[in-house]
This record gives sequence, structure tokens and C-alpha cells, in this order.
Amino acid sequence: MFELSGSYTDLYELTMAEAWFRAGRQDEKAVFDYFFRRLPFSGGYALLAGLEDLLAQLEQLRFSPRDLEYLAAQGLSSAFLAWLENFRFRGSVYAPREGDVVFPLRPVLQVEASLIEAQLIETLLLNVLNFQTLIATKASRMRTAAGSRPLLDFGLRRAQGLGGYWASRAAYIGGCNASSNVLAGRDYGIPVSGTMAHSFVQSHVDELSAFRAYAVARPEGCVLLVDTYDTLQSGLPNAITVAAELAAHGKALQAIRLDSGDFVRLSRAARAMLDAAGFTGVKIAASNQLDEYSISELLARGAAVDVFGVGTSLVTGHSDGSLDGVYKLCWLNGQPSIKLSENAAKTSLPHRKQVYRLADDSGRWLGLDLVTLRDEALPDAAFIAEPDGLPSAVSLSTWSTSESEALLWPIMIEGKRTLAARNVSEIADYARERLALLPAEYKKLQGAAQYRVALSPGLQAEQARLVAAAERS
Amino acid sequence: MFELSGSYTDLYELTMAEAWFRAGRQDEKAVFDYFFRRLPFSGGYALLAGLEDLLAQLEQLRFSPRDLEYLAAQGLSSAFLAWLENFRFRGSVYAPREGDVVFPLRPVLQVEASLIEAQLIETLLLNVLNFQTLIATKASRMRTAAGSRPLLDFGLRRAQGLGGYWASRAAYIGGCNASSNVLAGRDYGIPVSGTMAHSFVQSHVDELSAFRAYAVARPEGCVLLVDTYDTLQSGLPNAITVAAELAAHGKALQAIRLDSGDFVRLSRAARAMLDAAGFTGVKIAASNQLDEYSISELLARGAAVDVFGVGTSLVTGHSDGSLDGVYKLCWLNGQPSIKLSENAAKTSLPHRKQVYRLADDSGRWLGLDLVTLRDEALPDAAFIAEPDGLPSAVSLSTWSTSESEALLWPIMIEGKRTLAARNVSEIADYARERLALLPAEYKKLQGAAQYRVALSPGLQAEQARLVAAAERS
Repeated sequence: MFELSGSYTDLYELTMAEAWFRAGRQDEKAVFDYFFRRLPFSGGYALLAGLEDLLAQLEQLRFSPRDLEYLAAQGLSSAFLAWLENFRFRGSVYAPREGDVVFPLRPVLQVEASLIEAQLIETLLLNVLNFQTLIATKASRMRTAAGSRPLLDFGLRRAQGLGGYWASRAAYIGGCNASSNVLAGRDYGIPVSGTMAHSFVQSHVDELSAFRAYAVARPEGCVLLVDTYDTLQSGLPNAITVAAELAAHGKALQAIRLDSGDFVRLSRAARAMLDAAGFTGVKIAASNQLDEYSISELLARGAAVDVFGVGTSLVTGHSDGSLDGVYKLCWLNGQPSIKLSENAAKTSLPHRKQVYRLADDSGRWLGLDLVTLRDEALPDAAFIAEPDGLPSAVSLSTWSTSESEALLWPIMIEGKRTLAARNVSEIADYARERLALLPAEYKKLQGAAQYRVALSPGLQAEQARLVAAAERS
Repeated sequence: MFELSGSYTDLYELTMAEAWFRAGRQDEKAVFDYFFRRLPFSGGYALLAGLEDLLAQLEQLRFSPRDLEYLAAQGLSSAFLAWLENFRFRGSVYAPREGDVVFPLRPVLQVEASLIEAQLIETLLLNVLNFQTLIATKASRMRTAAGSRPLLDFGLRRAQGLGGYWASRAAYIGGCNASSNVLAGRDYGIPVSGTMAHSFVQSHVDELSAFRAYAVARPEGCVLLVDTYDTLQSGLPNAITVAAELAAHGKALQAIRLDSGDFVRLSRAARAMLDAAGFTGVKIAASNQLDEYSISELLARGAAVDVFGVGTSLVTGHSDGSLDGVYKLCWLNGQPSIKLSENAAKTSLPHRKQVYRLADDSGRWLGLDLVTLRDEALPDAAFIAEPDGLPSAVSLSTWSTSESEALLWPIMIEGKRTLAARNVSEIADYARERLALLPAEYKKLQGAAQYRVALSPGLQAEQARLVAAAERS
């Protein structure tokens, strides 16, 4: 893990904190909501990722001597720097488990802490959760497209610099089977995978020599890249030769990899050549600027591809590139707080809140998350927040109080986790489990249904009351 | 600096290296080209960035005990692990200076090292240079749009995780004046900037109290966020009140910040209100999902914005999100090497090479970079690589041998830098200087002219010879 220090933040978190500190407000209690407004990739859901990383960073977050020296040079007061030197995050975090399916315009997570503490972690929290959620969601879309075929993350070279580290983690949570990223493998326990580049083939007098040298070095899990010179005229015949040589030693060539050209034509021809030579077990991998759309299309057109290697589009979350998550103050010193907007739909939700994933008696998700005041009695009806910001009433008659779930639980209390850290395999399993519960119409790559969010009567009334009060003042 | 270890790589670099090692080829000498094929943002140039970071990483790159333990568990042989334990990068790097203007389809940089060393650094090199070049280029486009107005990077919260660290560096090189990113400020010496969020305003009984509290804490450089409740009805009148109070203490309000709404209408109204109150020196900053296109449009429509805060689009390089840089073997053991492609334009350039930025007698760039064999005599004519891969002849009669520049210089020899490291200010200055030499038609945000790349007769002939030889074999 890259251990981040207190300076992994925007300066304004510190200038605001200093102003509060100066006013003696450092012990006031605040609650912030983390939420996003728009689903990435025009899809029907997002997969929450990054939470365990966030908790691990919060547990170790300090302002280092180097941070303090730098901030002193930026003009922060010595009294405030002394406070920062003793800073630890001692707040609480309410959230679902990492890997859950989440939706826009309702709290994904709440932070309850002293005003300064809660504010100081804003940038870190947004940076971790926005990005990993984006990439896990992208990976899960590629998983949808690839079906049960192995999906490998090859993206580090095109990743956004150090962003590639968390990208590989999130990609695994979202559905990749392995990554080329050795550091992510080392630190997170993600299975790693890798074969050869064109340079390896070029480094030998001919392609067959290159394939033989590689098979000698890696007789297990040997994958040969067949497009350096000519995929069907050279790559395949040479791969078949080596497959036969491996077979003579009791080994099996695992796969060939196509990295250019028309994958439908090449994969079908390659499959036919391999099968005709008796190598029906040799897999065909394809890689080159693939995304969920091209994978779907290749399979629809009958490509004989067994394994997909995905890179740029996955690890950069193309074409969105970001999740628009924000962090808004909703409660301060026992009072609700609200941020207005000329666009009513962007007016924030005040109060400490709870979110319910509604389900019917058979446990089937109802396509509706309900947001309530944290301690509000469960209602029979609620209000849908329409895009124009005006509420419309919705009946909750079909939901089951036993099957529906409260999603925001204290996963960290006063700076300490309440549960053991989960590893990426456990998180990936949970994501799979949760996605299996999401009805298919929300998982379509294009034209996905939109999960709805309803506000309880109590929350709706409070929001309206605070908007009116703010407009009067 | 985040010190990266040997495991910041794709696994296949290691599996290939092990195969070479096993074959006793670890001391063979290789040259790799780094280049990209397509300019980002449909623009007319890219700004090379990340080079100093790359050199710093190469100087300290090691396989740590933890790396070696992990790789042992992945099945790498103990003999190869012993070699990795002693790995240092002792190769040479030929490149222009960081901040130079670079173009597609000709070497941006060459690495000359032992085959294994050169291969092992591929992922690191691509990861650093692809991303920082993308972001520096994006920032320079925003700089073009903003003219001389201050341009501030606020992107960390929406950056691709840890990618935000290098994003802020590259953004500064490309033309930003400051960043909100404290860590990047601390480590790279980038000026940092920051004011307040909506939460600060919400944390007070009313907006005026919030503005006063902030002005007390930050009387110098005070910037007030005016859109929490109502920009013109509440934010501006309160900001003017505080500006007057500051003035009474001999201080000046630096700026107000607009973060939502119609910036043309709001900025003009705000300017009028500030001016009418006598605060003609108070600047107006705007931030909210800005990019080079929206900045241009706002200014064209007469927005009275003096300072632009840019975030997501800048630090993620939206909408491209990546630069397609690759790293190709071009020379091995004294012999040229080539990678063919069904698409002739993707066939690689063999040999060690030099690149010239051609200029006329008055030093004016000619819109043409010339690629030659490294030691080739300078030619009078050359070949343009057309998009279809076929060459067409071009006369070089107007170029000046004294004004034209060779771009690839040994900036690292046998693992040691040949020049002192330059800081981000020096690099940003150099980028500005080089961009000033680039004719305006290549800097247009839309419909930019395309700089051409020509191959020398020697290189052209060698490429053709090697293609023919490969096709015969």
C-alpha cells in the first residue's frame, strides 16, 4: 500500500480547517454525505469500490514532519500546525460493504466526525472512491460482455500514472480474473498474468525460435503471441509446431494471443487450424483496444475468442474518465444543513440518513432505494425525486420489511474499523453476489433501466422546510 | 516522490526477461523506441512530460526484498531472482528535454541498454510518459483558451486515484499557474492555491458570518465562494460587505468564486456589482466542469471571468483519457529489428535513429520533423510517411542546417543523468518557449494543422529492405 499522508488533499480543506480552528470550532460534530449524481457509462448501476483502501488510509493518516514543514511555509499558523501534528481520524463511517451495487442521488456513505476531521478527509475520500467505483463498474460491464470467459487486465502502461495501482484492484473487484500489474498482485493478492510482447519474438532469428525459447522457459501456462509477422501464415503454424513439441513432453500449450487485425476472421481461422492439428484445448486470447462494446460485438459476430485482454479502456474508465462523486455537509451540531442550488435537483439532502434497498417478500429487489431520516419509522409511501427536483408520490405497498436491507452501517467507529478488513477476493465475491440480485434490465450495456430513489415523508418534509427557511432568510 | 520498485511493471516483462536470462542473453544490447501514433484531443501537437520523473525512478529502481519474495511465489527461478536482486538500470536514454513539443509516428525517446534492462523498464516508462504527456498537452490547450488569465488545477478529487499526483505536475508544466494539490506542491514545488467549499458557508449561521470568519482567518488572498444560497441576491452583497470591511483594515478581497449557474450572466452581473461598489480590483473566478472548449466559449460570449479553476477534464485528460504511446524494439546486437503489421502505417521504424526539428534560416519551424538513421549524413530530400503507409518524396531545400535541431540527446548514459535535474518551473518555462516556436496553425483547439514526419532516404531504404526480408522468410 502507498501510505498517504495528510498532504494528500486540496489546500482548501486546510484553509477552511484553519479558519474553524481559529474560531475554536474544532470539536463541533458534523456529518457529510458522499454521493454521486450520474451513473457512469450511461449504465444502470455502479459498483462501490475503494472502501477498504479508504479505511486503511484513514487508520494510518497523519501529517508527517515534512507535511508540517511545508504547510508552515505556506503560512498556516503554528497553533493550527500543532493541532495537525496530533491529527488522527477518530470519526465514524457509515456505508454498505465494498462491492455493493449503488445508485445516484442518495448517500453512498456518511462520515460522522468533528467538523475539521470530516472536512480534512474529503479529498482523500473522493479521490479513492470516485476512481475505484468508476473502474469496478467498467470492469463489471466488460464482465457482462465477456460472459464466463476469462477477462485479464493489461492496462498499467496506459493507466493514468500511479492510478493504475488502484485501477487493477478495482478491475478485479468488478470482474477481471487477473492482472498484468505485478505491484497490485503483490500488495492486494490479485492473480497476475503475463506472456510475451512483440519484442520477444523480434529478439530471435525467427518466430519459431522465439516460441521455442519461451516454451522452454515457461512450459506451464505458455501463451504465444502470433501476430508479429503474419498471424495465419506464420504465427499459427509456428504455434502449432510448438504445441506439438510441448505435447511430446507431456505439456500443453495454454493459448495463443491475437493482438491485431480482424478478430472474428483471425480467431475463427486460428480455431480451425488448431482444431485440425488436434489442439482443441488451446485457447485463443485477444487483446487490442477492447471494451465492453467491442467484446459484445465480437462475440455476436461469432469470434472464437476464449480470453479477453483489456487495457486502456478499462483502467481509465473510458470514455467517462471520472465519477462525479461529491461530499456535502448535511448535519452540524445536531442541526440539519442544506446546500441550495438554482437547479432544484442539485439541492442537497439534509440530516443524518439511512438508505434501504427495498425488496419484495421473495427477496427480489424492487428497483427502488429509499432514503429516510436515520431514525425515522419505516413509511408506507415515499416521494420519488424527479429530474426536475419536484417530488412525486410512490406507494411502498409491495416491499417487505424483512427482506429489505438497511445499507448504511457503521463500518468505522471513532477511527476504528468494526469489521476485519476484507481482501479483494472476498470483495469480488460480494460484488458478484450483489450484481446477481440486480434485475437484468439494470445491467444492460445500452438502454439500461434506471433504478429509482425515493425520499421518506420525513426527509422530504425536512428538505422542503430547510429550503423554505433558506429562501426566506 | 513515490519511489517505485521493480514490481511496478507488467508480469510479461519479467516472464520474457526470465526466458532471455535462461538462454544466457542478459548482456545482449538492445534499443527501443518510445513513440505514439495519434495526437490526443484531435490536436496539432503534444507536450512531452514526465521525463524527469522517469529518470528519477530509473536511478532508484530496485527489486525490493518484498518484490523478490512475491516473484519467487510466482514461480520465477532462483537464478533469475538473484539476477533481479542486483538489477540496476545502467542503460542510456536519448530524448529531447522535458516540455518539448512532440509529434506522432517518430521516436520521442530511445532507450539503449541490455535487452533485459530495456525490456524491464517498458511498463514504467510508458506509464509515466503516456500519462504526463497527455495531461501537459491538455493543460496547454486550456492555457491557449484562457489566454493570460490564471488557470488553477482543482482536480485531485476527481483524478484517477493516485494519478492525481503526476496530473498536477503535468498540468503545471502544460500551463497551469497553481494547483490545489498539497502533496504535489510539497514534492514538486508547484504553487498551491485554495479557498473554501460550500460546507464552510453552511457551517455558519449565515453566509455573511461565514465570509467574515474566512476573511479573519485569511485576510491575504481571501477568495469567497458566492453560490451556496443565491449568487447575486446573497453571495455578492455579502462579499461586497466583507470587501468593504477588509478595505477598512487596509486589506483587499482578492476574488469571488462562481461554482454554478450561467457564468456569462453571473460574471457580468457580479462584475457590475463589484465595480459599482468600488471594488474594481476584486477578481472573478469560475469553476465547474470547465475545459478548453467551455473556457473559449465563455470568453467569446463575454464572460467577465478573470481566473479559471479546472478539475476533472484536466486531470483525467478527458475525453481521450490516454495517450497511445508504445515501446518497440528497433535494434538488437548491432542489427536493426522491425515489427510488421497488416496495416503498413503501423510497421515499426528499425535502427537507432535521430530526429531533426527542421527550421528555415530565420529559425522558423517548417512543420516537418525528419527521422534519420542515427549517423546518417543529412539529406536533401526525404519521404513523408502517408497514412496508408506508402512514402511520398518531399524536398528539404528550405531547411537550414544551422537552425534545425537534433532532438534526441543522451540525457542518461549508463544509468546516470548527463544533466542536472530540472524543476517543474524550468520545465514549464521550456514548454512555453517551445510552444511559442510552434506556428499558430498547429495550436488551434479545433481543426489544427498536422505536423509532418519525414523519413530520410537511408531509413526509408532500410525499412523497405527489412520488410521485404521478413516477407520473404
